[in-house]
Amino acid sequence: MMYLEDFQVGQTFDFTTPPVSKEEIKAFAERWDPQPLHLDEEHATKIHGGLIASGFQTILMVFEPVMKEMMTNVANIGGAGFDTLRWLKPLHPDESLAVRITVNSVTPSRSKPDRGILIYTLTATNPAGEKIFTTDVPVMIKTKLEIDDA
Amino acid sequence: MMYLEDFQVGQTFDFTTPPVSKEEIKAFAERWDPQPLHLDEEHATKIHGGLIASGFQTILMVFEPVMKEMMTNVANIGGAGFDTLRWLKPLHPDESLAVRITVNSVTPSRSKPDRGILIYTLTATNPAGEKIFTTDVPVMIKTKLEIDDA
Repeated sequence: MMYLEDFQVGQTFDFTTPPVSKEEIKAFAERWDPQPLHLDEEHATKIHGGLIASGFQTILMVFEPVMKEMMTNVANIGGAGFDTLRWLKPLHPDESLAVRITVNSVTPSRSKPDRGILIYTLTATNPAGEKIFTTDVPVMIKTKLEIDDA
Repeated sequence: MMYLEDFQVGQTFDFTTPPVSKEEIKAFAERWDPQPLHLDEEHATKIHGGLIASGFQTILMVFEPVMKEMMTNVANIGGAGFDTLRWLKPLHPDESLAVRITVNSVTPSRSKPDRGILIYTLTATNPAGEKIFTTDVPVMIKTKLEIDDA
């Protein structure tokens, strides 16, 4: 289990997302975000050169490996939110993304010494080497001071 | 179809999310965000007084009615991202949320007169009247100048 003290500014963690198929893009869009850009190939091709994934699906995809491979091993109290989240380029079908987390700051709480805020930047890069997504993520994490989950 | 000219600062749009069950919270968490707070009731009760939904699920839920009931009728080129997204309070099972969108700014593009940026604030309020989620959303929308989808 990793605690606040186990993180340092500049540390990086790398992940890979599995590619998402045209069918998965359409199925997700029908459930959550039924816009023509994610459902109608002809319409999407005119605007973006092909079908593109819903931005909500992109968020889930890029964070999936972070939550499954990293955060389950972190003494995570909870995410505060996202700052300056940007879909920089569209995500097209069958593209795997390289996801990198970089630790920006590690700030112990002044009032509650059992916790602190870690802020990391997440970026996702497509196979062409283009950064397609970025956001800053503040997360509240426990320090080693109080360990109540045996 | 609504174009950039159809929006004014201060305009509001209201939506309601269906409540999400304990089972749906766990199923979503298992697929995308398998942290104890969303899966283990005993653990979540110690920290948050009960099982809480993944923040990713909260995002999908609050935007679902916006995308389905509103954005399908807007000449939407694409979302730019989210600013200052915050999970202010946990979302517990069986709570329906009141979602309000308020238009903050409407800015035609200087270089491309067929489009512009609308920024809205979305807030979601639980049945106890507590604001549990907020974010600012910049969206690129077409003007009436070029209408190519007959």
